[in-house]
Amino acid sequence: MEVRTLRELVRFDVERKQKIPVFDSPHLYYDLYTLLPGQRQRPFAFKRSDKIVYVLEGVLRASVDGEQADLTAGQALWIPAGAVNSLENAGREPVVALVVVAPHPECAKRKKKHPDLRPGAG
Amino acid sequence: MEVRTLRELVRFDVERKQKIPVFDSPHLYYDLYTLLPGQRQRPFAFKRSDKIVYVLEGVLRASVDGEQADLTAGQALWIPAGAVNSLENAGREPVVALVVVAPHPECAKRKKKHPDLRPGAG
Repeated sequence: MEVRTLRELVRFDVERKQKIPVFDSPHLYYDLYTLLPGQRQRPFAFKRSDKIVYVLEGVLRASVDGEQADLTAGQALWIPAGAVNSLENAGREPVVALVVVAPHPECAKRKKKHPDLRPGAG
Repeated sequence: MEVRTLRELVRFDVERKQKIPVFDSPHLYYDLYTLLPGQRQRPFAFKRSDKIVYVLEGVLRASVDGEQADLTAGQALWIPAGAVNSLENAGREPVVALVVVAPHPECAKRKKKHPDLRPGAG
């Protein structure tokens, strides 16, 4: 059985926000994002994939097609395919968020960074 | 922006476990499952959809193709399409779990129970 204890996977990097794969499947990916204060994911859109962000720790400033909200632990945000979105830690504490993207966009960049990823593997 | 505060959606039912839609999109659904001690989801399999269960509260006994594990808060389980799985609250405290299923299986039963669901709507 493919079980992950998320707190064991959490790590931060002072250079940039971290995307930590938890599960990759043919249908979706499931990642931890970690952002230190001031770190961000620049605006972009998945053409064909929906994205849901669930905040585990900290305060995450999210922008979707020009609208903005500060999400606190226990809040979830749905970002539809095609919507330009960005994420930023605008607070003083580290942010940990659980992000699911489906269908799996199979980005070349992701494959290059994590060549060992396979369905179900974290 | 489609933001949900999950604790505001949590409810329990002494009659049976609850599946509480948070988001439905063309590509996935994202639910809260709540189970009081002794409540369970009987064994079944999605033919073509993967399922990921993340435990927010309590201890959830999960079975996947005959293997069993007790998941505690902060643990995630990947259930691949086709795998027979069941979930049970075998502990003494209520269980709250966040469940994503992709691609959206568009079950007739779900549509009947939640006729108002539409992409992005909780």
